[in-house]
Amino acid sequence: MPFYQYFNGEIFPISAALFETNDLGLLRGYGLFDYFRTYNGVPFRWDDYWQRFENSATLLKLTVPLSQQETSKILADLHALSEEQEVAFRFVLTGGYAPDSVNVVKPNFLIRTEALPQDNPAGRLKGIKVLPYEYVRDLAEIKSTNYVHMVLMAEEMRNQQAADLLFYKDGEISELTRSNIFLFKDNVLITSDQNVLKGITRKVVMELAQPFFEIQVRPVAYDELMSADEVFTTSTTKWVMPVVQIGNHTVGNGTAGKNSLFLQGLFEDMVTEWGK
Amino acid sequence: MPFYQYFNGEIFPISAALFETNDLGLLRGYGLFDYFRTYNGVPFRWDDYWQRFENSATLLKLTVPLSQQETSKILADLHALSEEQEVAFRFVLTGGYAPDSVNVVKPNFLIRTEALPQDNPAGRLKGIKVLPYEYVRDLAEIKSTNYVHMVLMAEEMRNQQAADLLFYKDGEISELTRSNIFLFKDNVLITSDQNVLKGITRKVVMELAQPFFEIQVRPVAYDELMSADEVFTTSTTKWVMPVVQIGNHTVGNGTAGKNSLFLQGLFEDMVTEWGK
Repeated sequence: MPFYQYFNGEIFPISAALFETNDLGLLRGYGLFDYFRTYNGVPFRWDDYWQRFENSATLLKLTVPLSQQETSKILADLHALSEEQEVAFRFVLTGGYAPDSVNVVKPNFLIRTEALPQDNPAGRLKGIKVLPYEYVRDLAEIKSTNYVHMVLMAEEMRNQQAADLLFYKDGEISELTRSNIFLFKDNVLITSDQNVLKGITRKVVMELAQPFFEIQVRPVAYDELMSADEVFTTSTTKWVMPVVQIGNHTVGNGTAGKNSLFLQGLFEDMVTEWGK
Repeated sequence: MPFYQYFNGEIFPISAALFETNDLGLLRGYGLFDYFRTYNGVPFRWDDYWQRFENSATLLKLTVPLSQQETSKILADLHALSEEQEVAFRFVLTGGYAPDSVNVVKPNFLIRTEALPQDNPAGRLKGIKVLPYEYVRDLAEIKSTNYVHMVLMAEEMRNQQAADLLFYKDGEISELTRSNIFLFKDNVLITSDQNVLKGITRKVVMELAQPFFEIQVRPVAYDELMSADEVFTTSTTKWVMPVVQIGNHTVGNGTAGKNSLFLQGLFEDMVTEWGK
């Protein structure tokens, strides 16, 4: 695993210090990212991730300095250098170096190769606990680098044996810190379209669920979550992860729901076959 | 002006690339900063700035790796290396390098020496225009690195010949992007204590105003601002800067108010004599 990274046109070892200290990502939190992985050596839903990355950049008024095709070539090079079958890629685009620490001159574009995220197979079977947290992400449709509350609450989550935070505000739920949330009520699949980052796994799961369930994408009240039959969360690293406890509230009978496990199975089948 | 910077125990030229790319400030926006300057070669209100810096760090659960005394010594070294009479210092403390991109292991501590901010003497005499902007800063009492809206709106501000944004939400005003806001109504000086970063210049100006004016520190309604006799903003770089236009609304008769200019004069006298 000799991991490497791409930065503004060159390839460097992963631990190289690359950022000068007047970068707007560092000084002003002006940055966005994206994150995805390979299955069977092939980047999963690369077109979707690239499109989301470009969309975030557009919303932050930053120009991505490379085309998708140019970037594909870099991914292939980084992947080959890693000597690993599977890798994850993290894109980071910042406002770049700013002499006045305010105005964007030229973005900095970084692509990190990372080891695959640690799996949580027990969580996938048994489900996880999340903590309700009153907060709504600013500019939620941008995959910005602002994860202050997640880092701030990391220790508290460990203390409470919780895997994540569930954001809610004004009676509505939105998302977890890095993943979307779904619920089943009477076999209807429901997820929010308000103040969420539209996850690629969220999209894939809705595609997979389409033939089997009615799907509602709309504002979701906190109270609905409390009376849900099943709850699960989706992300690149979590796949379809049942949520069985929300603070002190037990979802359903406290075990992973059968519809959730069914969708998890479909997702697992898909990634098992990906690229073959 | 050979400016240098301190980073985790060593001194480097100011343009050195220092940050590895898994820093939590960069990847997760988990960072805070502070910024101050010298007058007559002496750091202005250094105890106040240090205290605020430490307070921000405490609220983000980060440990400042140096004492104030150790830091003073570094400031003196950086100042001497700059060969300048006056400099500005920017402290940045991030969550440091995180193998899992979530949990803080050891903060990174950076001190940049910077050229003095560009003065705006015309603005100080004539006053500036600001744009009302519906937003409230998250964790406002922390001087975090999150200035996404400021950078995002930089071009719009230039287009509208505005110098800054004025944050308001739910009928109350809080602050500008990087400065506090005051108003005079019937010779009473009023400033908000809600969702604001407590500026050192704000504190100094209240000390200077104390013998001359009644001061109210309390929630301030947007409507009060609209009927104010005078408005001004305070910061390390702006001193006491009259605000004469808020979007399309003209404050008072559209010129710098006499009370504002009086306080500006007191502040100017103070910094002229600082350290002498």
